Amino acid sequence: MSSIQNRTVETVSEIRTEDLDWLATGAGILGTGGGGDPRLGRLRLETIFENEDYPNHVEIISPEELSPDATVASVGGMGAPTISREKFPKGDEDLKSLRAIETASGDKVDAIIPGEIGGANSMAPLCVAALTGLPVIDGDGMGRAFPELQMDTFFIYGAPVNFAANTDEHGNQVVYQDIQSAAQLEKFARSITVDMGGRSGYAFPLMEGSFVSEYAIADTVSLARELGRRVHEGRDGGGNPITAIEETLDANALFTGKIVDVFRRNREGFAFGEVSLAALDGDASLTIEFQNEFLIARGEDDAVLASVPDLICIVDKDTGAPITTGSLRYGQRVKVMGVPAPKLLKTDAALDVIGPGAFGYDIEYQQLSENSAIGR
Amino acid sequence: MSSIQNRTVETVSEIRTEDLDWLATGAGILGTGGGGDPRLGRLRLETIFENEDYPNHVEIISPEELSPDATVASVGGMGAPTISREKFPKGDEDLKSLRAIETASGDKVDAIIPGEIGGANSMAPLCVAALTGLPVIDGDGMGRAFPELQMDTFFIYGAPVNFAANTDEHGNQVVYQDIQSAAQLEKFARSITVDMGGRSGYAFPLMEGSFVSEYAIADTVSLARELGRRVHEGRDGGGNPITAIEETLDANALFTGKIVDVFRRNREGFAFGEVSLAALDGDASLTIEFQNEFLIARGEDDAVLASVPDLICIVDKDTGAPITTGSLRYGQRVKVMGVPAPKLLKTDAALDVIGPGAFGYDIEYQQLSENSAIGR
Repeated sequence: MSSIQNRTVETVSEIRTEDLDWLATGAGILGTGGGGDPRLGRLRLETIFENEDYPNHVEIISPEELSPDATVASVGGMGAPTISREKFPKGDEDLKSLRAIETASGDKVDAIIPGEIGGANSMAPLCVAALTGLPVIDGDGMGRAFPELQMDTFFIYGAPVNFAANTDEHGNQVVYQDIQSAAQLEKFARSITVDMGGRSGYAFPLMEGSFVSEYAIADTVSLARELGRRVHEGRDGGGNPITAIEETLDANALFTGKIVDVFRRNREGFAFGEVSLAALDGDASLTIEFQNEFLIARGEDDAVLASVPDLICIVDKDTGAPITTGSLRYGQRVKVMGVPAPKLLKTDAALDVIGPGAFGYDIEYQQLSENSAIGR
Repeated sequence: MSSIQNRTVETVSEIRTEDLDWLATGAGILGTGGGGDPRLGRLRLETIFENEDYPNHVEIISPEELSPDATVASVGGMGAPTISREKFPKGDEDLKSLRAIETASGDKVDAIIPGEIGGANSMAPLCVAALTGLPVIDGDGMGRAFPELQMDTFFIYGAPVNFAANTDEHGNQVVYQDIQSAAQLEKFARSITVDMGGRSGYAFPLMEGSFVSEYAIADTVSLARELGRRVHEGRDGGGNPITAIEETLDANALFTGKIVDVFRRNREGFAFGEVSLAALDGDASLTIEFQNEFLIARGEDDAVLASVPDLICIVDKDTGAPITTGSLRYGQRVKVMGVPAPKLLKTDAALDVIGPGAFGYDIEYQQLSENSAIGR
């Protein structure tokens, strides 16, 4: 048991079938509308756990347990979540990408870390781990989800942009070597993902254990599972799901209302758009713009209530179920939650890459709180 | 000396500095407006030949001399020729791409073949050969230039789409593996080339000697050199440059006139456009559409005078100097030459990929002649 602020989150040493519902809900909330739908990955993971050729659980190790000279990589999916809802993966894209960077580099990967804990990319590394027997590190590179690959703490804090790979469901494989910057890799990999039909598996970057121990957002696999567990308990009568989110994530409800308009546009491989909400009583309103993930929430007179890198999460106002940008629908009754971002996302170096300005907003970042329940 | 139809072309066993002017002119004409400007590659090759760390010539071997189990690859540049005129290569892009596919495949390349003899990609393989000591095969995959990579005889006749690489002037490198079709590779490599600023070096495909002996357009390095030599001799008073082209390539002048309009648009990594010509006397006119290369020539009442895969070459009407799509200018006095395409470009399999329909023209291909002076 490790203490996060004044809350208690149970850190786990393995993930089993019984954890998956919780993990999916927690990762869905932390996905801030994006990161893809974790349900498909959950089903796949269940299937692997049930297959007697594979172990029935995945080992989770703390970033501290990692050998300083271990080789660590991220795996997962790239693309617009709205496309992933219709274009299902074959299932071997991420693993093939991992093998490709191992072959290209000559290194063998010792452990896998989620690039982002939010959404489907919480499950994808567990699938690869189950298939390979590799452990998964209890942490990730975002503590949430972000739309572009240079936006993880690994690249922000200097992980080498060598090697990387994308693979599609046909086995088409593209390997990136000696790329000059993570932003350049994002450009290449996004074009290829678009050419692959808007969805690809990825593996990158190759990192040393000591680097990962320092720059991962720690304990987020455990946090996502715990968040989901508490929300589910709240639904089952043990409390209130919304209160569970508020307490686990140090979150505040920014708005309660119904969705009155949704505008979506798939462009350059991303799901862009805007959702408008109206209060259930009175005439207060809120608009939230998104690029895969929710980026900025504006209230009356366009006043900014929350913005990246802080998390803006939309959940069902009664069940606390996460609502993704792809599943936003007219009439949904929702709570909009503001969640303070991990500290590693709020340094000057990080704000250059994931602050409002990085998404084209000419506003000063006003953090929701100095502290964060995500990471340490 | 090998006989091509009723003409005699001297096949060469090496290329030296004194051949380069001729080769550049010949490759420029065979480029049918595209393939990039050979002059820059010529200057680079001269510099390598003058450097005492490298040999002062490149060995040229006939496709027949090739060992059946030799490993052969193409190298060169991808991109819109209009961009290559301003964005110069660093010089190591093609060689780095070659090394990348060697590393990825575990194979060692024994000989290099130009993917296209037209334009800059006639010189690029010679540069890599000079730097590595590898021989260059007297032949190529097009007998001309085409805008897209699936349009060479190697891919048309089934070369494996594994492995391929692009490299840019910063050393950014992208390797393609297990790609399901050449058209898919074209899509990926074109997106990456656009992301690389519109110009990249390439290496692909890896082929066996026996395959190359069968499907290369033979003797085209010698042909390009010979064509240039005869044009230069014509200029120097030994005849007429236009007659030299007609005789060497079995070409016919389709039109003589001046350029009255040029429309260009760089889109999706290609130089698209149309050039309009008017007769010097009378009111005859001609329009030629292009995608990097000249695709279709239309005369009065839009009657098609020539189309892909036959070569449409625009040359200065007095000097026979090739005019590329990028150097078309109002007022130029030109001859438009129609050149019968090599036989390997006129099979049903080939016409599916490089016939008028492949470029979006709803016309039946009418060949200029059954025979061709290009290839055997």
